[in-house]
Amino acid sequence: MISKFEVKPIKVGHRTIGGNAPVIIAGPCSVESAEQIMEIAIQAKHMGVNFLRGGIFKPRTSPHDFQGLGLEGLDFMVNAGKHTGLAIVTELMDAKHLDLFVDKVDVIQIGSRNMYNYALLKAVGETKKPILLKRGFSATIREWIMAAEHIAKSGNDNIIFCERGIRTFEDYTRNTLDLTAVPIIQKETGLPIIVDPSHGTGIRELVGIMSEASIACGANGLMIEAHTNPELSISDKAQTVDMLELSEIVKKIEKYK
Amino acid sequence: MISKFEVKPIKVGHRTIGGNAPVIIAGPCSVESAEQIMEIAIQAKHMGVNFLRGGIFKPRTSPHDFQGLGLEGLDFMVNAGKHTGLAIVTELMDAKHLDLFVDKVDVIQIGSRNMYNYALLKAVGETKKPILLKRGFSATIREWIMAAEHIAKSGNDNIIFCERGIRTFEDYTRNTLDLTAVPIIQKETGLPIIVDPSHGTGIRELVGIMSEASIACGANGLMIEAHTNPELSISDKAQTVDMLELSEIVKKIEKYK
Amino acid sequence: MISKFEVKPIKVGHRTIGGNAPVIIAGPCSVESAEQIMEIAIQAKHMGVNFLRGGIFKPRTSPHDFQGLGLEGLDFMVNAGKHTGLAIVTELMDAKHLDLFVDKVDVIQIGSRNMYNYALLKAVGETKKPILLKRGFSATIREWIMAAEHIAKSGNDNIIFCERGIRTFEDYTRNTLDLTAVPIIQKETGLPIIVDPSHGTGIRELVGIMSEASIACGANGLMIEAHTNPELSISDKAQTVDMLELSEIVKKIEKYK
Amino acid sequence: MISKFEVKPIKVGHRTIGGNAPVIIAGPCSVESAEQIMEIAIQAKHMGVNFLRGGIFKPRTSPHDFQGLGLEGLDFMVNAGKHTGLAIVTELMDAKHLDLFVDKVDVIQIGSRNMYNYALLKAVGETKKPILLKRGFSATIREWIMAAEHIAKSGNDNIIFCERGIRTFEDYTRNTLDLTAVPIIQKETGLPIIVDPSHGTGIRELVGIMSEASIACGANGLMIEAHTNPELSISDKAQTVDMLELSEIVKKIEKYK
Repeated sequence: MISKFEVKPIKVGHRTIGGNAPVIIAGPCSVESAEQIMEIAIQAKHMGVNFLRGGIFKPRTSPHDFQGLGLEGLDFMVNAGKHTGLAIVTELMDAKHLDLFVDKVDVIQIGSRNMYNYALLKAVGETKKPILLKRGFSATIREWIMAAEHIAKSGNDNIIFCERGIRTFEDYTRNTLDLTAVPIIQKETGLPIIVDPSHGTGIRELVGIMSEASIACGANGLMIEAHTNPELSISDKAQTVDMLELSEIVKKIEKYK
Repeated sequence: MISKFEVKPIKVGHRTIGGNAPVIIAGPCSVESAEQIMEIAIQAKHMGVNFLRGGIFKPRTSPHDFQGLGLEGLDFMVNAGKHTGLAIVTELMDAKHLDLFVDKVDVIQIGSRNMYNYALLKAVGETKKPILLKRGFSATIREWIMAAEHIAKSGNDNIIFCERGIRTFEDYTRNTLDLTAVPIIQKETGLPIIVDPSHGTGIRELVGIMSEASIACGANGLMIEAHTNPELSISDKAQTVDMLELSEIVKKIEKYK
Repeated sequence: MISKFEVKPIKVGHRTIGGNAPVIIAGPCSVESAEQIMEIAIQAKHMGVNFLRGGIFKPRTSPHDFQGLGLEGLDFMVNAGKHTGLAIVTELMDAKHLDLFVDKVDVIQIGSRNMYNYALLKAVGETKKPILLKRGFSATIREWIMAAEHIAKSGNDNIIFCERGIRTFEDYTRNTLDLTAVPIIQKETGLPIIVDPSHGTGIRELVGIMSEASIACGANGLMIEAHTNPELSISDKAQTVDMLELSEIVKKIEKYK
Repeated sequence: MISKFEVKPIKVGHRTIGGNAPVIIAGPCSVESAEQIMEIAIQAKHMGVNFLRGGIFKPRTSPHDFQGLGLEGLDFMVNAGKHTGLAIVTELMDAKHLDLFVDKVDVIQIGSRNMYNYALLKAVGETKKPILLKRGFSATIREWIMAAEHIAKSGNDNIIFCERGIRTFEDYTRNTLDLTAVPIIQKETGLPIIVDPSHGTGIRELVGIMSEASIACGANGLMIEAHTNPELSISDKAQTVDMLELSEIVKKIEKYK
């Protein structure tokens, strides 16, 4: 067992989050084209990644920045998932897309900006889909657990937490990765938790190192931003690893299984 | 002029936020009954308050806490507003209620938890209603301005900012009231900003004192939680002032006009 | 009375901090030369400032930055004080200079970096000098009060608190000025508190505005970095006002007396 | 190699911090009696601990709390060190004790409260003793490195950093353990860094788990509060492990060697 405290395994098709081995969710910050996401998916699959991530609706601080490919991008992801057998994970920002997501997506992500969006939490709680619930920028652990409770109260307890760093005074890193939240969430909720060291550090070179620390304290998986050419990434390039680096992280994690 | 930097006056019926005098928005945390909101409205009106606030859909950390009276509560508020001539301000949590709010509410509040909910910001941006945009718990000033930009990009620049304290390590107060944001927002956006010293301090005894400081640094108004019997308030009672205290705050603010 | 809660007046010669009028402590970040401090003192005196501040030992994050003129600078300050009748305030960083400070300085400042330096607090507690105790970068109000208790336990309760902003995620301002601390300190300790809007904001243009807010919530005084030519200031120039701006701040504060 | 980036090994007698194996520094928060520290030292030695920690001068928020046994406590530690062969680590709060510490202590600790106490940093920089430099409560990584630079500029570069958690809004844990600082410090300074998961979490049950994460991201050692009977510990009992728990942590760390 990876977890330091027992957790409920969450089934995603034939895969399990919260089981005996940590899962790896990888992919680009944004889906940029059919070719881009297919190529990343194929390479990721070969190295042992289980889940493909990619943003199609991007919550951006500025409304003038790239907002994602939208529903066309979703189809690109679905194709890449079908072709490779990877399960797909993407963020839902607006309840009006929920039906479409329920049909096409394997795990629905609720992003940090929407952790307190109780209308959206209620909406996804009315489905049976696995929900990946990212921690709000400055959410206390208790508030984060209560956000999950908003989902569960509507009938869906297929919830996976995702620690992605919190906001502090420190400015060397993009966020302060709060790894102590990993065992606390497992103990308090009995649900799995994964870690996103890409947003948690904001620094490509530290992603692999903090991945190891995450698994060592019991994380049930990792979510990593990866791209065939990080420098060409439309968003988050400073924290995006290339496919070679991703394969090395996957190998390092093997030893913790 | 109250503002330290020039701002665009926002018209709300015959009233103005961002004009020559600070506005006072007061009322209970939650609308609890037709009688409660009517009584508060009548007393508030007599002492010179201009706007009536009250929550009908309450975003609560726990889904097991009181969630507000909902649409019935809205009708209670509308009646109290009509009877007294007070403009009404209440929080919109879910875009599905937007049409109703546009018809019935004078100022639509976006709460701290939804400051990053870009789908909701876009939706209210497609109306012409004045929007009261509260600062997120740990939103930087730049992110807050960008949230307003999400609204404005959809066509609505009738935006009033509301400083309500940020999350820090300090635990004597509920939040840390960041009054320096007042002149910064005015300077950077040319839009009005009001202050909510109730959430900003969390302590009834400090609400009046920090109201004075808010106006002294140029705030275009105040939003204050007030109740005829704070101890019976369903929510936020520790920070809710009684009607006598409210009238004293209104008087103190007079001298800054 | 300026204070919102009653405080013990602290006598400094014939002046009083915590009395009926707010005090103004002004001067350069660093004492740079005999001429510089004398010129600033003369101008400050004419506009109604009561206390002259200036750093002679400068606590600098980098040991390679200017560390202050040291004891020679102290003599320049003492001369400027004698010539103008201004009381002098300067920071003590090292207990080995204490005897000298007791002889020559009117108010001994303990800087933010040393708020938890209990050996130094004990040392100044063994004198009868008025102590200006700045808040630590991330000190809770309770810890700050306890730091004063370390001084008082050694026998000296001539303590003036100084709020100078705390460290948060916000990066528009140098620090987040926590003005709510003003009435809290007065209520909890019965001692006076002043505000340093220069460090509290880090932005010259905001110093005057936040000075008004400070006095409006009851601060017993202000500490302001001022220089005859801020652009030539060796340190803290972005937050240092010129003498004209200082005189305007002094005038604005008059109306609160 | 444990470190993710190459570091300078620091010699402490025949031991090395920053070498091929992580070091374990363990012992009580406070030295309470000759018997207590001797018993802990003997047990710690048997399980493979290398360094004995214990506070003799305790920096306490309140001056009315237990302040440590003082110099008598130092002799108790020295005896326990001699008897067991453990190197001893204790905190210096006041430069007036420096000569004594240089004679009797193997590693001099600078506590979080004194990280910005430049007079003290300069004083220990004038010795050749290894210095354990704890991170300030809200020190940025850059400021922490600059504090080390204050020591090094005086001639002593035998510096070991110690991450012990930073102050944030989160209140489930005593502090937020910032493990990402571990590889950053190694990369930026080329010096070793250890982690204190006792203060970093404040929760006994999490100390072992976060010890594993610390070593997994390259920490050169651990500093752990341990006591033969944590419930009788004078200070920090909630975060102090018993000797059995300590031995299990030591064993878990073995696998990372």
